[in-house]
Amino acid sequence: MRVALGLSYDGAAFCGWQTQPNVNTVQDAVEEALGSFLAGRVSTVCAGRTDTGVHALNQVIHLDTDAVRSPESWVRGLNALLPATVAVQWARAVPKDFHARFSAQVREYLYVIRNDRVRSPLLDGRVGWVFRTLNRDAMQHAANRMLGEHDFSCFRSSECQAASPVRHLQAIDIIEQAPYFYFRFRANAFLHHMIRNIMGTLVYVGMGRQSPEWVDTLLASQDRRLAAPTFSPAGLYLAGVTYPEQYDIPRPDSRALLHLLAGFSLPSSGQL
Amino acid sequence: MRVALGLSYDGAAFCGWQTQPNVNTVQDAVEEALGSFLAGRVSTVCAGRTDTGVHALNQVIHLDTDAVRSPESWVRGLNALLPATVAVQWARAVPKDFHARFSAQVREYLYVIRNDRVRSPLLDGRVGWVFRTLNRDAMQHAANRMLGEHDFSCFRSSECQAASPVRHLQAIDIIEQAPYFYFRFRANAFLHHMIRNIMGTLVYVGMGRQSPEWVDTLLASQDRRLAAPTFSPAGLYLAGVTYPEQYDIPRPDSRALLHLLAGFSLPSSGQL
Repeated sequence: MRVALGLSYDGAAFCGWQTQPNVNTVQDAVEEALGSFLAGRVSTVCAGRTDTGVHALNQVIHLDTDAVRSPESWVRGLNALLPATVAVQWARAVPKDFHARFSAQVREYLYVIRNDRVRSPLLDGRVGWVFRTLNRDAMQHAANRMLGEHDFSCFRSSECQAASPVRHLQAIDIIEQAPYFYFRFRANAFLHHMIRNIMGTLVYVGMGRQSPEWVDTLLASQDRRLAAPTFSPAGLYLAGVTYPEQYDIPRPDSRALLHLLAGFSLPSSGQL
Repeated sequence: MRVALGLSYDGAAFCGWQTQPNVNTVQDAVEEALGSFLAGRVSTVCAGRTDTGVHALNQVIHLDTDAVRSPESWVRGLNALLPATVAVQWARAVPKDFHARFSAQVREYLYVIRNDRVRSPLLDGRVGWVFRTLNRDAMQHAANRMLGEHDFSCFRSSECQAASPVRHLQAIDIIEQAPYFYFRFRANAFLHHMIRNIMGTLVYVGMGRQSPEWVDTLLASQDRRLAAPTFSPAGLYLAGVTYPEQYDIPRPDSRALLHLLAGFSLPSSGQL
């Protein structure tokens, strides 16, 4: 039987998703818990291989097993075995042709910036922090120039293993709610470090160091060295993954995701 | 010159505010940074001695020094020296008769509970977690029975050093915004563990294990053993301290405090 699980985790506690020798990864933690839960070694496949420090609100993984458990048992049983920094949010049996990575149609990431003169100790590792005042409209204009299909070589890590630098960026929505900025990215897939590299460039534009039109130059150059430095992983969240409807994979809406992210929403004006 | 500072910190990183031998406390971290900044040993006095695991959004402290610095220099200079888990939010020169502890008129604490079947890895140590469904109205009825002046012996830690168990509880406001509950406590002062002990009892009532009227029995008993166990420190925040107006101490409003707390507010419906 193939089982899909939705995971959230604190990326600051791990050296990324993928198993590597001698470091602590999310995949190791999850496969260790699965090993205890199912009394046998299990391999997992994820929708998005998050880097060190990158969080997940709704990472989707799949695994194959002969064990039969109720969805509630998967969730409770695994959460009792996982460290406090990882939790299974839902579980569901899926058809054998479902694949967490290859069946994914849209990946959604969220970047949260705190734009304030003082850093927040309570959000250390959870948000990117920018001291200088950011201009939302300038950043949105720059972001709009990246939408659609482009060669994103200028925002691609030298370690990227993708066959092609061409991606189709469906949306970058920037929402300001002082002192926070939320950047929502949607694409079928992203190159390695692509969002963090785009964020570095958007922040340059937001601070007025470059104009929104700079993006055209960068994209045309196909040269990573011309764009801004890679931005911090701290504010980056894998927010959700969309699959064909037939698989009936839970997809928390963005409001719910932000709830999870923020932990708390702000009671509406006047209540507090 | 006497200087007042507003601090926020992640209580999970410290063994409480107050200096103790062989453990890491907020006071140690702050006085070490002050020692470097002012090139000399400095003692501080705080408004509320938070326990291990208890956070602060706006702790107020004072210190005496001959050094003259601009408010911006205090904030930036100290934040460059402090660990990521503490930050000075504001600084201001105050009259010599200002005292962070004795001048305080009202202390406000916030408790945040996540009421959901699944825990949140991203809020581990930041919120209390309750699996069973809580009834807000039952908890508010129970809370209302605690308002005003009472002998709070039933909610007082055996280690409490206060001269009297009598306190005047001005407000407990409970706001539900699923899956979170916010409890706002206001009083001139609190006994040791008083809020965490009250929270344990409110959660018992919220789960239906006891009726709101149980509070009357507990208060009358003056017996700590009858009330519920002390609740987790994870969701507790020293939110703000009120002083006489003449001192002009910054007092972030509760919305701003929740911003700080949550880190993010929820963009209004429809935006995301």
